[in-house]
Amino acid sequence: MKNSGNSPTHEYIRENGDRFQAELLEFLSIPSVSTDSSFKDDIGRAAVFVRDRLLDAGADRAELYPTSGHPVVYGEKIVDPHAPTLLCYGHYDVQPADPYDLWKTPPFVPDIRNGRVYARGSADDKGQVYMYVKALETLCRTGRNFCNFKFLIEGEEEIGSPSLPSFLESHKSLLSSDGILISDTSFISEDLPSLTIGVRGLAYLEIRVEGPNRDLHSGEYGGAVENPVHVLCKILSSLKDSAGRITIPGFYEEVISLSDVDRKVYRSIPFNEEGFKEKLGVGEVFGETGYSTLERIGTRPSLDIHGIWGGYIQEGAKTILPSQAHAKLSMRLVPNQRGEDIMEKTLRHLKSICPPTVKLSVHPHHSSEAFVSSTEDPTYKSASKALGHIFACTPVGVRCGGSIPIVPVLHRVLGLSPVLLGFGLPEDAIHSPNESYALSQYWKGIETLCCLFEDRLSSSF
Amino acid sequence: MKNSGNSPTHEYIRENGDRFQAELLEFLSIPSVSTDSSFKDDIGRAAVFVRDRLLDAGADRAELYPTSGHPVVYGEKIVDPHAPTLLCYGHYDVQPADPYDLWKTPPFVPDIRNGRVYARGSADDKGQVYMYVKALETLCRTGRNFCNFKFLIEGEEEIGSPSLPSFLESHKSLLSSDGILISDTSFISEDLPSLTIGVRGLAYLEIRVEGPNRDLHSGEYGGAVENPVHVLCKILSSLKDSAGRITIPGFYEEVISLSDVDRKVYRSIPFNEEGFKEKLGVGEVFGETGYSTLERIGTRPSLDIHGIWGGYIQEGAKTILPSQAHAKLSMRLVPNQRGEDIMEKTLRHLKSICPPTVKLSVHPHHSSEAFVSSTEDPTYKSASKALGHIFACTPVGVRCGGSIPIVPVLHRVLGLSPVLLGFGLPEDAIHSPNESYALSQYWKGIETLCCLFEDRLSSSF
Repeated sequence: MKNSGNSPTHEYIRENGDRFQAELLEFLSIPSVSTDSSFKDDIGRAAVFVRDRLLDAGADRAELYPTSGHPVVYGEKIVDPHAPTLLCYGHYDVQPADPYDLWKTPPFVPDIRNGRVYARGSADDKGQVYMYVKALETLCRTGRNFCNFKFLIEGEEEIGSPSLPSFLESHKSLLSSDGILISDTSFISEDLPSLTIGVRGLAYLEIRVEGPNRDLHSGEYGGAVENPVHVLCKILSSLKDSAGRITIPGFYEEVISLSDVDRKVYRSIPFNEEGFKEKLGVGEVFGETGYSTLERIGTRPSLDIHGIWGGYIQEGAKTILPSQAHAKLSMRLVPNQRGEDIMEKTLRHLKSICPPTVKLSVHPHHSSEAFVSSTEDPTYKSASKALGHIFACTPVGVRCGGSIPIVPVLHRVLGLSPVLLGFGLPEDAIHSPNESYALSQYWKGIETLCCLFEDRLSSSF
Repeated sequence: MKNSGNSPTHEYIRENGDRFQAELLEFLSIPSVSTDSSFKDDIGRAAVFVRDRLLDAGADRAELYPTSGHPVVYGEKIVDPHAPTLLCYGHYDVQPADPYDLWKTPPFVPDIRNGRVYARGSADDKGQVYMYVKALETLCRTGRNFCNFKFLIEGEEEIGSPSLPSFLESHKSLLSSDGILISDTSFISEDLPSLTIGVRGLAYLEIRVEGPNRDLHSGEYGGAVENPVHVLCKILSSLKDSAGRITIPGFYEEVISLSDVDRKVYRSIPFNEEGFKEKLGVGEVFGETGYSTLERIGTRPSLDIHGIWGGYIQEGAKTILPSQAHAKLSMRLVPNQRGEDIMEKTLRHLKSICPPTVKLSVHPHHSSEAFVSSTEDPTYKSASKALGHIFACTPVGVRCGGSIPIVPVLHRVLGLSPVLLGFGLPEDAIHSPNESYALSQYWKGIETLCCLFEDRLSSSF
């Protein structure tokens, strides 16, 4: 599993491999779920863990910065004020683990099976964050740390990084650097190492439809009083048409249509749609007419309902006309669409289509912009080079469907083009039960980072 | 509160009132929820309670008859084989109490406030069942029991009485009588004592829509894979059109259109729609175009979603494309519609509109027929007379919107027209949080039953 290279860094990683792995499992055993307040203490424990491991690894300093939400961990290792500085961003928070009953092993009791570590957050993003900590240690201990490091590890990425923008604004000089690295994305496939050159934006909101002031007997009132669940279903189903297009007025106004060049790139990416359907257990794919599956995910906006609930949802039959119905939904946005603008258009539309027989209230959770990175950035070039070197390939650059709200903000506030060097794989099942991370990616990731950091200073390996 | 009459029965009820009330509260404190298997033991305790109280009241015999579901309680008091026999039907099971957090006092800790007893099942149907037990006691103790009684108290009414039809078939002679009384319905309003002369039928089913074989990251897959929640919303919202009509092909085929006579009756019933809306907190009523609120409830079929769930429904934001979505729904049916036929038509329709991108499975819970009773039946006449006597009024007969699946079965199997003499009031909030029963109705109900049983033999008061 571990490397067979003979450079000092390779050797060090090999010799300390067991500890590198044990520490990762300890990190993964902390249930740092950011969206659910009942995990607040665990969030704190995870932040402290990252800070302490950075200090152990050789950082000059590492501290927790409190925010109105969860703390930010900042750490740095400055070897030479004249040497280039790389800012490494990641997050120590994770998605909720439920539905718990679908996990083969408990989400916060890391389990290793066929070369993968199974745990919530293993790939998104703890496993990838920890590669940076171990790369730092490796470079420090082997005396190869010729460039400066800054670490920015937050605890609110999975809830849209509400506190980080103001933190960035108020700590510009602390964070000033020559490049930004983020490892929170995936390869297209194991045999196709890739860098992510774009992420989608997000507009997330929650809807409540209120009917009668209490659950009613569906016999005594059914047919004479509007059913809020029925109204919610009507509203939600109307948001997408049969061609898979979103019906919110003005939704596509700012969308830049896909260029022939982009289309060419996507057509050139090897993609097995039959295997894709088989893996997911779906009979057919479904999406916006006129686009391929990869184009739909990487380059087109989308709308999804994440959760819906209302009325009686326990065992058996209860005959009520429910008082309320709720749903969580979000839209993924593409470059040039603005999250706040879309949120505004959505709220206006929802209000306009809600009938007077019920009360509608909408709670906007958060929104973020899409981003496409520059492949001319020197850090991007070094990352691509290091990736090609360690994985013995020529990496491709593709836009992914996910959202990292903070990416465009880092770009705007710090004036740098973040490089998305992610080591995840499609089979990691992030955000799903049984999330896992391939240990081979963990080891090669650490090697790639060491290689990159060395190269970023002098182009010699 | 209690009566001021001076007949022996009135006096007995007055003298024993405190005990009559205490016993009711004990009955209500048993959480006999029939639809949730975790309450199985409580169901058993409730059945035993009814049996023992019948024996205490003076029944010659009372027994539990096991069924494939919950036990049936049968009891009888035969004073004279030549005297008329009345079969009294009721149920000791109750609806689930959730949402628990909306109850001012715990649903199974009966609480008396402003002349009402608050508890799940207080009005539906324990409070009304127990009036029969106390009427029996009163008549036995005062030597006024000139007619024969049979009691049939089941524990599966709230789940559609699955076991009772076969029980009736196999116990015809045991149950043979001259009239059937059921108190499981309500007055139109406190100042308008009424008998129910019709109930709606019911077809209850549960739907599951399955998409991908696991929850997916909505960024990595959103826009390229069908969302099962979205499909479920599409299906459910399409089942009713903007005119409030059900769109299932053939649904209205067997429906007998409302006669001018019926319409006249409904128009003549005093009904305050503004007050109705205000009580429910709705801005407008909604239902089938061309019918009044009372007509919609009493004489037209309806379709309601009782519960819906799928995906992430906890606190905060989770960005998944859910694997499954679920809903419970039912249709209320009117005379001449057959539950099984409607169920069949519904299943066929659901399958026909489900897209190939997901898997649909439908679980039919139960179905029942509507029923309209004969106002010429001597027991109906006695009931109306007794009601008018105790409440000093001329009772009206109206069809209600609820369903009592066993009513048409009792009619078919025992060849008698059940008389629906219910003492509930619209404000009882049955099936809702804070269900309650007016104690004044409890006392007057017992008096009315005593009066009825005496009258059923000799028309002299």
